Amino acid sequence: MITYIHERGCCLLQFYKIVSEGIAHNSYMIASGGSAAVIDPRRDSDCYLEIARKNDCTITHIFETHRNEDYVIGSTELASRCGAEIYHGARMAFGYGMGVHEGDRFALGSLDLTVIETPGHTEESCSFVLRDREISDEPYMVFCGDTLFAGDIARTDFFGNERKREMAERMYDSITTKILPLGDGVILCPAHGAGSICGAEIADHPFSTIGYERRTNPLLRIVKEAFVSRRITETPYTPPYFRQMERFNKDGAPLRTGMPRLHPLTVAELNPLRISGCQVVDIRAPTGFAGGHIPGSFSIWRDGVPAFTGWFLNYEEPIVLIDDFNLDLEPVLRHFVRLGYDNLSGYLAGGFAAWYRAAQEVSTIATCTVQCLRQRIDAAPPFLLDVRDKKNHTRVGSIPGSYHVYVGELPYHLDEIPRDTPVVVYCDAGFKGSLAASVLARHQYTDVTNVLGGMQAWMRAGYPVEK
Amino acid sequence: MITYIHERGCCLLQFYKIVSEGIAHNSYMIASGGSAAVIDPRRDSDCYLEIARKNDCTITHIFETHRNEDYVIGSTELASRCGAEIYHGARMAFGYGMGVHEGDRFALGSLDLTVIETPGHTEESCSFVLRDREISDEPYMVFCGDTLFAGDIARTDFFGNERKREMAERMYDSITTKILPLGDGVILCPAHGAGSICGAEIADHPFSTIGYERRTNPLLRIVKEAFVSRRITETPYTPPYFRQMERFNKDGAPLRTGMPRLHPLTVAELNPLRISGCQVVDIRAPTGFAGGHIPGSFSIWRDGVPAFTGWFLNYEEPIVLIDDFNLDLEPVLRHFVRLGYDNLSGYLAGGFAAWYRAAQEVSTIATCTVQCLRQRIDAAPPFLLDVRDKKNHTRVGSIPGSYHVYVGELPYHLDEIPRDTPVVVYCDAGFKGSLAASVLARHQYTDVTNVLGGMQAWMRAGYPVEK
Amino acid sequence: MITYIHERGCCLLQFYKIVSEGIAHNSYMIASGGSAAVIDPRRDSDCYLEIARKNDCTITHIFETHRNEDYVIGSTELASRCGAEIYHGARMAFGYGMGVHEGDRFALGSLDLTVIETPGHTEESCSFVLRDREISDEPYMVFCGDTLFAGDIARTDFFGNERKREMAERMYDSITTKILPLGDGVILCPAHGAGSICGAEIADHPFSTIGYERRTNPLLRIVKEAFVSRRITETPYTPPYFRQMERFNKDGAPLRTGMPRLHPLTVAELNPLRISGCQVVDIRAPTGFAGGHIPGSFSIWRDGVPAFTGWFLNYEEPIVLIDDFNLDLEPVLRHFVRLGYDNLSGYLAGGFAAWYRAAQEVSTIATCTVQCLRQRIDAAPPFLLDVRDKKNHTRVGSIPGSYHVYVGELPYHLDEIPRDTPVVVYCDAGFKGSLAASVLARHQYTDVTNVLGGMQAWMRAGYPVEK
Amino acid sequence: MITYIHERGCCLLQFYKIVSEGIAHNSYMIASGGSAAVIDPRRDSDCYLEIARKNDCTITHIFETHRNEDYVIGSTELASRCGAEIYHGARMAFGYGMGVHEGDRFALGSLDLTVIETPGHTEESCSFVLRDREISDEPYMVFCGDTLFAGDIARTDFFGNERKREMAERMYDSITTKILPLGDGVILCPAHGAGSICGAEIADHPFSTIGYERRTNPLLRIVKEAFVSRRITETPYTPPYFRQMERFNKDGAPLRTGMPRLHPLTVAELNPLRISGCQVVDIRAPTGFAGGHIPGSFSIWRDGVPAFTGWFLNYEEPIVLIDDFNLDLEPVLRHFVRLGYDNLSGYLAGGFAAWYRAAQEVSTIATCTVQCLRQRIDAAPPFLLDVRDKKNHTRVGSIPGSYHVYVGELPYHLDEIPRDTPVVVYCDAGFKGSLAASVLARHQYTDVTNVLGGMQAWMRAGYPVEK
Repeated sequence: MITYIHERGCCLLQFYKIVSEGIAHNSYMIASGGSAAVIDPRRDSDCYLEIARKNDCTITHIFETHRNEDYVIGSTELASRCGAEIYHGARMAFGYGMGVHEGDRFALGSLDLTVIETPGHTEESCSFVLRDREISDEPYMVFCGDTLFAGDIARTDFFGNERKREMAERMYDSITTKILPLGDGVILCPAHGAGSICGAEIADHPFSTIGYERRTNPLLRIVKEAFVSRRITETPYTPPYFRQMERFNKDGAPLRTGMPRLHPLTVAELNPLRISGCQVVDIRAPTGFAGGHIPGSFSIWRDGVPAFTGWFLNYEEPIVLIDDFNLDLEPVLRHFVRLGYDNLSGYLAGGFAAWYRAAQEVSTIATCTVQCLRQRIDAAPPFLLDVRDKKNHTRVGSIPGSYHVYVGELPYHLDEIPRDTPVVVYCDAGFKGSLAASVLARHQYTDVTNVLGGMQAWMRAGYPVEK
Repeated sequence: MITYIHERGCCLLQFYKIVSEGIAHNSYMIASGGSAAVIDPRRDSDCYLEIARKNDCTITHIFETHRNEDYVIGSTELASRCGAEIYHGARMAFGYGMGVHEGDRFALGSLDLTVIETPGHTEESCSFVLRDREISDEPYMVFCGDTLFAGDIARTDFFGNERKREMAERMYDSITTKILPLGDGVILCPAHGAGSICGAEIADHPFSTIGYERRTNPLLRIVKEAFVSRRITETPYTPPYFRQMERFNKDGAPLRTGMPRLHPLTVAELNPLRISGCQVVDIRAPTGFAGGHIPGSFSIWRDGVPAFTGWFLNYEEPIVLIDDFNLDLEPVLRHFVRLGYDNLSGYLAGGFAAWYRAAQEVSTIATCTVQCLRQRIDAAPPFLLDVRDKKNHTRVGSIPGSYHVYVGELPYHLDEIPRDTPVVVYCDAGFKGSLAASVLARHQYTDVTNVLGGMQAWMRAGYPVEK
Repeated sequence: MITYIHERGCCLLQFYKIVSEGIAHNSYMIASGGSAAVIDPRRDSDCYLEIARKNDCTITHIFETHRNEDYVIGSTELASRCGAEIYHGARMAFGYGMGVHEGDRFALGSLDLTVIETPGHTEESCSFVLRDREISDEPYMVFCGDTLFAGDIARTDFFGNERKREMAERMYDSITTKILPLGDGVILCPAHGAGSICGAEIADHPFSTIGYERRTNPLLRIVKEAFVSRRITETPYTPPYFRQMERFNKDGAPLRTGMPRLHPLTVAELNPLRISGCQVVDIRAPTGFAGGHIPGSFSIWRDGVPAFTGWFLNYEEPIVLIDDFNLDLEPVLRHFVRLGYDNLSGYLAGGFAAWYRAAQEVSTIATCTVQCLRQRIDAAPPFLLDVRDKKNHTRVGSIPGSYHVYVGELPYHLDEIPRDTPVVVYCDAGFKGSLAASVLARHQYTDVTNVLGGMQAWMRAGYPVEK
Repeated sequence: MITYIHERGCCLLQFYKIVSEGIAHNSYMIASGGSAAVIDPRRDSDCYLEIARKNDCTITHIFETHRNEDYVIGSTELASRCGAEIYHGARMAFGYGMGVHEGDRFALGSLDLTVIETPGHTEESCSFVLRDREISDEPYMVFCGDTLFAGDIARTDFFGNERKREMAERMYDSITTKILPLGDGVILCPAHGAGSICGAEIADHPFSTIGYERRTNPLLRIVKEAFVSRRITETPYTPPYFRQMERFNKDGAPLRTGMPRLHPLTVAELNPLRISGCQVVDIRAPTGFAGGHIPGSFSIWRDGVPAFTGWFLNYEEPIVLIDDFNLDLEPVLRHFVRLGYDNLSGYLAGGFAAWYRAAQEVSTIATCTVQCLRQRIDAAPPFLLDVRDKKNHTRVGSIPGSYHVYVGELPYHLDEIPRDTPVVVYCDAGFKGSLAASVLARHQYTDVTNVLGGMQAWMRAGYPVEK
């Protein structure tokens, strides 16, 4: 496409930020002079090829800021489709790509990317400093992966308790001696936004700068020892699927060519799968699940898939989706692809109604409003189970008398939850509560109620909160 | 667009069939030599303009086969956007357009449309016979509106009991003396397909021919008197919104310019509307509605909107939609536009979850499977209410001991339904049952259960059926 | 998707006609009861999978009406993606699929497809008669491949002069003893529409019926011997790529997974390709090509690709596209995929302007209007070359004094075209003339002019025509 | 849509930058807590409504940073469709909206926008400082309209020569005393990007920061007097359509509802328009225009429409577009809408080929390569006309012996261009040269040649350059 003819010819800086929602992952694509680089590509990589096509450029470089734990990096996938070279930190032995070291530089038209090693989150973490030589030698942006986030700093707990102090110190040093000195005016391009499991406090700001972080990020306003101490006591959540991600991202994940297609399954096809072993994921809202569902299914609403499947689903048994109208399943499919779940096999054709129209067994989950919960507590207090994450539980406070287990860790705490007492689960809104209820039902709990609206409704109703 | 250069120059026949689902309405667009005609346009008329644009042609003629009752015709809307002339049968006084008579002919490039008057469904019904003079003087297609359908003949009951015989006879004559003589090889282009309220037996065939109908349409294989007798005893359903459609289609409906935009409403905005009077339509599936809904809302699942809103909703009070994730609302919006509901005002932002997160009152509806219903009947028989349409009720048979009232007519038969006994409603699958339950709840019935899977599940389970 | 709940349950007849423009190829997809069949799928097969997805059905059967010559059949491609079984006529040895014989029947929900053998176009040609048993045992449609078309009958010249009579007789018999007896009301679903190289007279009607053809098809109104005689004297065009298609369609073409991606090439990348041997296809309009083009390129405008690449391009050397703004290249790409050109390698990034901005050599072609041609003829008559096809040349007539060679066969007739005289080429509109001029330029003709508007403009100007 | 449930509830910061290409205009949309604001909306305002719909929010505020000259602001258009209030600087009398003053503050969920008055480009120019109170009281972004750009400072010449000094001084003060003190880490959101007529040196950076500009913007590295002196001598281009924009943007432009539809015109419809007076705009590339065009048409390639129509087209006579294949006309249409050209009436159906197929008169323009130009100069030097803008002319240098007139100002300099000598026009690439040639042809110049590749090719060929 010929656009306005700049004197700089084809050396325009093209910049794209590609956000994968749910995992709140940011990848970036920059291009100049007909060549493009992608930083931390996701596995469903059509978007990068499409941008390259629109801008008449060729993807020549793929940079990984670090070996990821929370999603499958798309480097090998993308490289197989465009022939680009993959680069990552040299301080780990990867099964693919080439290692880079402090000070390595890469030219892309008038652009220049310089490597700075920024360990802490992982050993081999690197950041890439972007300059536009056409304009100036000043740094313009920094692709800093999982180091400094908007409002937070990446977790440093992946190497066991014994190395927690060391990694926290290295992170502190990386940020204070490598990132911050780039200057206040440098635009920060981290690998995650708000909602990521890699940083619980990340702000929902689309962009930040070193200057804004220096002034507002709480972790940059404490001294090194205070930061390290805090880190030593923290234990962020680590879902089981991280192990699979580590394998994939070290050795290279299986290649896909484009997106898989979801297979419509009839009830007659689903039932044998249930017998031989499959994972039924009900992606509807809590009230739909409460009103009726396939026995044994997980209640993971469509937008909860990226955050919660990794806690409960394995990579072997086929996964089947249940929806009402099977609308817009493609984003749901992408979530599974990004987490490496290539065992997704299909969805129930005709939706959940096909199930009961075929006279199959239907389970339900009881629900209650906060008003009804209050009355019930007064009458005969049930076992009140709070399944929110620690942070939410601690900061917001909880319903008096409740017991806290995070929904993801529920399977490991079943002996703490009585089977002879009615259980009432709640979270912040009712979605994670529905998931928790479905998990308990899978473990033969028979009297489980989910609180619609959870803590948000409880507080809105003006009921007492325990901190 | 230059495509393959035919010798016939630009006199290619372009033919499009545009299906509006739900009301199962067919409109047609034909073009030749740069001019196009639309037969029976729908109100959301962008599609015709878009086809004209793609084919470099101008819409010059709009033909109405008859004054419709089941949807708002888009003639005036489309004419206002493209300047075409509107034509309809001359035997009724319309507030717009020009009248046509038997034998009138219209040229469109090499095409030729000839009017034949085919009364029966309405007084002024016309059909349009298409010939391609470039090929032959033989008739090629007939746009026959509501006369002969694939597998059925249009209803003839719109002029009261006293004229039922007359209109049935006229319909029989129209078909046998005007349509059938066109010849077996003529392609039939009726205004409705399977699912229309204008012909309960319409086959789900995309196209038919006069020959195929002559051989297979049951109503064409009986003699005139048998046809008329049958018609005299029939009383097809006539939803209340038909009156509004008649007004709109006689005088011209209010003009829109393009599609309206749905307004996202917060709970804080919805509550005052509920007090001042609004119609809340819950477009989720029956299990979602059962699991929790806004008190007083109608349960009309998204694909049920065209068939059922016209029975219950008025044209004055604002209409608000409730969904879980507000996915793909645009087709739902179109359904309302086609039925003339310009009082659609918005949808609940954040979905039904926003409602309970705000600690609002939540109603539920009980559901049961057919297995559980069977047990319940054996234990303590409830009042079993069959809300399917007559045809379904009669042909398929019903659950022994049930009482039949069609869901659309429920409000007129409330005195037949006890208030001191549990009521169990069922339909064929569970969707219309949910609607019926919501209607009963609005009339203060407090113990209502909807059967998931309805008659389909009951029969699949092998339970006894009463015919 | 739950749509309106029919009593017939899920046995709805779904019918789709998929038209591939340019080659004017029709494939069809029918579904009932959750199973679908595709007749004569094209190679870019996403469309069928997408329809299956939307209708919650599984493609179980793929039927080939015959071994095609004019495009790559997509049977193996589609089967590899959905697991369907492939069926074709048993009277040829294919490298894949299963053979069917007269009378074989296939059930698909309530539908029934019966095989009738209809040789003539090829030895093993079959047609498939569709009945809907839910409605009647009468035939409803016939998928008749390359036998009877709307307004024409398929060519019968593929087996050499010695078998022309035999094949014409067999075609006549197939149609008169197998197709026509199905009845006037049966809908005809042939494999080609207007513009196909498989039938020069095909009408541009979207659908036809046996009755309409019986009454209007000129070839059905003559006796067998007249038909055969006509066929013996006819020699339809046979582009060289047909041989490749025959190989692919007999043995199975190479599998693709989805559509290929076009690679943007810079001038620096294109030049080495030109030296090592590549085929440059300029897809712009004649005036763009005339105003400047890369030396040696073919002028095949974007919509002319399906009809003309097969005459000139080989399957070995890489193909590069030249456009001005590289808009909407995807349909062009599809044309190449359908003809099996997997050697398409890319397009010039930045369009033709990138070429001259890089100071590369630019060729031009002279053009003239018909007014200017007339003056030129009067002054000093050039060698006037008519490159239209025979039919157009014969029926429309030509400019007095012109010499006729079809554009596709130009390379074989160069010795008939003088090199020492100015050559003026014309076709019907100017597009094929531009192609002819580009072919002559490739053969070192230096004084070639293309007539803008060709015969159409000549006649519009009221100039004399020679018949 | 329920996405990941943040503790901050619905107070997420949503941020969108909407770029209108060609005029290189940036508008911004921010939302928090269900309310949204748009800064400097464009006239084709569907994009904002669509974003609001996707984010379940309501647009409540529209801010104008200043009265624009280069496009029609969409404030009244958007307000009419969403009911938002419009705000602009109080120091000018607008025909709509409300005035704001230094220090005024607006809350939007957790966000806070503070007005700072920043005159210079216009009297009433304001900037809006964004803070996220949830995070900090530090400024986060500044929407600075036409003050500080990435790499440039907005023009200050709109108030005549007598006020050039004053306005330049006020601009300098606005930037140095209002914008820069916000701090290096603040993200800069100006109203224009690279290519805008409002700042010739704007860098093609997607975002900038105050810090990056402070360090790299050349105009921030000189003292006030140097800046003012430079400004006094500068005379940026001012196309005639600016006057219409000023009227529209002061009083409010005519309202549209959605985008207009382009009308396909036949040759028979176009010819009367040409007689009664219309403006034919040929949007093809230079070689297509050179190879043949409608006499009297302007050669403005599709991407040149926003930059060049305003120099040549009036707002009264109907505008007709000429393309080859009429592909993707919608972006072209948008360009006209944004410049307020509501007199766009259609496009030639069938493309330019329809013109010559109808045997109409065709004009051509000669072209030459730089190689051929060089030879020609050596043989018999033509009048060499350089139509690039001043900046390009001065910095890049020119072909020796050429005469410079900017293409936009050509009509005012015709007496400087000889009519008895061959004229060869060149620009940087060949597009503006084609436009210049078309303008000269409209003024009866008969021997005009356009240089393909222009200065870029000339330099690539290594030919001498005069500075």
